[in-house]
Formats: sequence, C-alpha cells, structure tokens
Amino acid sequence: MPRLVLFTSEDAHYSIQKLASFMGIGANNVYSIRTDACGKMQMDHLESEILRAKCEGGHPFMVSATAGTTVLGAFDPLTQIADLCEKYQLWFHVDAAWGGGALVSPKYRTLLAGIERADSVTWNPHKLLAAPQQCSTFLTRHTNLLKQCHSCNASYLFQKDKFYDTKYDTGDKHIQCGRRADVFKFWLMWKAKGTMGLQKHTEKVFEMAEYFTEQIRQRSDFEMVVNEPECTNVCFWYLPPSLRDCPRDEVFWAKLHKVAPKIKERMMKDGSMMITYQPLRQKPNFFRLVLQNSSLEKSDMLHIINKIAQLGEDL
Amino acid sequence: MPRLVLFTSEDAHYSIQKLASFMGIGANNVYSIRTDACGKMQMDHLESEILRAKCEGGHPFMVSATAGTTVLGAFDPLTQIADLCEKYQLWFHVDAAWGGGALVSPKYRTLLAGIERADSVTWNPHKLLAAPQQCSTFLTRHTNLLKQCHSCNASYLFQKDKFYDTKYDTGDKHIQCGRRADVFKFWLMWKAKGTMGLQKHTEKVFEMAEYFTEQIRQRSDFEMVVNEPECTNVCFWYLPPSLRDCPRDEVFWAKLHKVAPKIKERMMKDGSMMITYQPLRQKPNFFRLVLQNSSLEKSDMLHIINKIAQLGEDL
Repeated sequence: MPRLVLFTSEDAHYSIQKLASFMGIGANNVYSIRTDACGKMQMDHLESEILRAKCEGGHPFMVSATAGTTVLGAFDPLTQIADLCEKYQLWFHVDAAWGGGALVSPKYRTLLAGIERADSVTWNPHKLLAAPQQCSTFLTRHTNLLKQCHSCNASYLFQKDKFYDTKYDTGDKHIQCGRRADVFKFWLMWKAKGTMGLQKHTEKVFEMAEYFTEQIRQRSDFEMVVNEPECTNVCFWYLPPSLRDCPRDEVFWAKLHKVAPKIKERMMKDGSMMITYQPLRQKPNFFRLVLQNSSLEKSDMLHIINKIAQLGEDL
Repeated sequence: MPRLVLFTSEDAHYSIQKLASFMGIGANNVYSIRTDACGKMQMDHLESEILRAKCEGGHPFMVSATAGTTVLGAFDPLTQIADLCEKYQLWFHVDAAWGGGALVSPKYRTLLAGIERADSVTWNPHKLLAAPQQCSTFLTRHTNLLKQCHSCNASYLFQKDKFYDTKYDTGDKHIQCGRRADVFKFWLMWKAKGTMGLQKHTEKVFEMAEYFTEQIRQRSDFEMVVNEPECTNVCFWYLPPSLRDCPRDEVFWAKLHKVAPKIKERMMKDGSMMITYQPLRQKPNFFRLVLQNSSLEKSDMLHIINKIAQLGEDL
C-alpha cells in the first residue's frame, strides 16, 4: 500500500484531518495548502505540494476543495483545481457542506463554477438552506462505487430473494447500518417550498449579509476582516473607544483579542444574541456573523450592530 | 505499525468488519470465531485464534463480544471473554447494541453478567428500549480517552477563552461535527418512564417472546431454530403441509428455503404484518420475530402464528 496523500486548504474544515486519522491514512498525510487574503486555496502552492509529495514517494490521490469555508466563507477556485486534478489524475472532492446551498440561486451559483466536474461533493442542506439539523448529503458521479466500497452483503439484512425489485434497498451502500433517513425532511421541504422558495431564502440571507457589511464599513468603530465576503459569513472586529486611535502594534492586537470574548460574555448574560467569535492564524479574535435565517430583516442587522457597539463602549 | 487483529464471533454484526475496513485495519484482520448451536462465541476457538494471530506475527488488540446477536439473539459468555482479554491484554468491547436494554431488568440482566468489566460498550436504546431511531451510545470506562483520540481542537469551534466552564463543550470528543444530540430524547424518556417503566417494557417483550415460543413449540407445523431463545428474537420455520412428513434431505431444505420468502411476500401484499426472514450459514431461510413493542399482547402472538399458518397452508 503506498502512502496516500490528500490536499486541502489550511482553512478547510477540521473533519478532513479527522477523516484521514480515522481511515488509517494518517493526519500527517493531509497536506495543508496556503490560502490567499480572501481565504482561497493558492493554486501555485497546491501544484508545488503535489509535486513535493510525489518526490517524497507519496501517492497523491485527492484534492478536497472547499466551497464556503467555515470561518471566512471563501470559495476555492474550483475550475482551476479541477484542471490540476485532471492533470495529476487526482480525485476531485468538493466540500460544499456550507456553500452548496448557493446552487439554488442563479445569482450566487457562479461562486461554485466548476463543481460540475467534481468526483464527489458534500452538501449539507441543514446549513445554508436551514433544513433542521442533521441533513448531510454525499454525492458522487461514479455509479455503483458506494456499493463496491461499502457493501458487506449481510445475509440477514439484504436478502436477494425478495419478491420485489431490491435496487431500492440502499442501506448497504452507507457507512452506518441503523440510521434515520435524514434527507427525507429536506425532500419534503423542497417539495413544499419549491426551488424558487429555496432561492428566495438563500438570496435573502445573502442580501442581509451584504447589507450588514455595508453598514459596518461606514462606521469607524467596526473593521472588516475580509473586505468582500463571498458567503453569508461576515467577519469583523469591533474597536472599542480605548483602541480606536492606537498604533497597530503587538499591544493593540493583544488587547483586541480580548474584546470579542468579553462582548460575547455580555451578550450571553444579557440573553440578547449569540454571535460566534474565533481567531484565525495571526488574526486575533473576531466576530463572525453567519446568516441562514431568512426571516431576519435590515432592522435586525442594525440592532446587532448597535447592540455590539453598546456592549463594548466602555472597553 | 504492527498488523492489528481483532476477534469477534461469526454471528457478530457486520459493522465490525465495516469498521475494520474503514479504519484501515483491514477486513482480513477481523478473525471470525465459531459459535455454538445457541450462537455463542466458542471460547476454545477464541483462544486458539488469538494464539494463531500471534504466531503469524499479528498484534491482537481487541475482542468484540456480542450481547444479543442480530439473528439468534445470543449472548456471548462475557465473563470468560473478560478473563481471556485480561490474560492476553486485549481491549474488551461489548456490542450490546441490541441486548443492552436487558440491563434495566433485574430478571434478565444476568444475561450480560461480565459487561461491568468491559473497556467499552455499544448500547442502542432505539432497539430493545424502543427509543425513536436513532439513539446509539458508546460508553467507555477510560476517562479522557475519547478526547485524546478524537480531538482536533479546531480554534473556530472549541475556544478556550469562553467566560464559562468549557468542560461541557464535548463536541470535539466525537467523530462527527454537526450532529443532533440523539441521546437527549432517551434521557427525557428515562425521566418520564423511570427505570421501573423501562423494566416493565423490557420484561413485557421478553414475556411475549417466551409465550410465542411456547405456542409454536406445541405445534407440528412450526419448528424452532434455537430451542431456547435468550433474547426477544424467536427464530423458527413454518413447515407447510407438503413438507411436513418428508425426510430431512437436501431436497427438503431447498424447498424449505423458499417457504419464508413466499409467505413474507403474501404478508406484504396482504398488508397484515412484516416479519423478517434470513438464512444463517447452513440453515435455510427462517422467520425471525423480534419483539420490542410492549403494547403487543398474547392475542397478537396467536394472531401472528395463525396468520403465518394460514398464508402457508397451500405451499
């Protein structure tokens, strides 16, 4: 068995590394590709890492691109990655768990251009499309592959001498045996809302994220982490009065690192809202507003901004 | 890395083999231990297989015992397996997914004597205790081990600078990231019914299985597969009139193999009931009644028996 190597960006979801540990591939064989300032996988680094793995005697087998990264909401350049996968004969996986919902919108689906060339796709309707948790899907264009890989043909479950067509007995294709048909609720939701309904939902949350972004860009007490968010993740710092005119030195960043946790503590004790925060590499703790609720309005966006400013004004 | 070898009975659930495939251990390194006529793991074969694996340069690391096998409902001899695991320093896992529910009953929990020595246990309240699907638990006595094994410490999820005690942020201990708290419904169910309520439920389904067994034992048109079922699985053949006085030769077994599928087809078209059937090694297709619904009464048991006899009387 050769040493299998897979490639994903440094901003990819931690489940990629977990998968490698669990499947015996080894977390060290997940090569981490650098991202640019927007959070997109850098193509020159990807290609040089593929070549490095080969030089070292490894066997590159997959690139896992991300369509909607967890923190910044960035979309990797799927078409270019597809080209590289073709060149080096690698499996092209797209983790569109978060961003896949944008496919229902003609306006936003261009973010995922190239996904049609993927060998496999992860897509979680429980995220951007707001289906109830949990609702994760795995799609592949390779007919019969799941059966070939996963099938155990347990004779007490998957009898072949049933009187009806057993091709809908799909349980043996999955990893789990006893499980709920989680995707059924999404199927019902799709039937009820229609593609148009899902499109409206998605475009509404995108528009609210854009509105929120516009609003905080105009204020001197807020600062964007990525200037042009691609998804409904808006990452930003709140600058309290005491930090507003300080030089951007180490002391400044160390102080700023403590602002978001303190405001979040106040939010929670207040019971008013829940907005996550986190650091990202060199960047100190920042807020990440992630919208997936299409009943929120512009007034809610203004409320969130004003509330954060109010909770932090004495810091 | 040595070649890891694990041991489980030939009647164990197919997920053990699937686990070995997925974790890179390799399905070939699951050594299958023979069972006796009741479906229990044979201890002499287990020990000789452990020794064989060592001789071959393998590294035995785990025995997965089954408490309630899928088909026959057999309980492996847990105490003796625990002794062997101690002797050879192997991880002692008990797959009590099905039979674990018997622990709530003072009358039936002796079936699982020895489970208290396990390193880890699988227990699915959605099976014998009839919690809604899905509700699978994994228990281990080794404090902090799951964290050590599974933790990825993704900085965007498991921040350590929260203002409250983060020891309840247990998400990082699991394999999955986004998931429902499936066990919560069982916690509520336990609160509502009490241990006594769960005990009543469990003892009722055991009693109905025993009643069903008594009834078909008295009839010449039914035959038990295992004479004394341990769990609520009752495995039996229906002998249609045309087979009742035949010699037990190959022709007989070949014909009997087709009886259960035919009756099941009629049940389903009739819409009257659903009882599973399957073969087991040399044994041709037999019915397996598995009770987990404590609202069923003796009259229902008689109805099932009479209905099967009626559906098969012309075969």
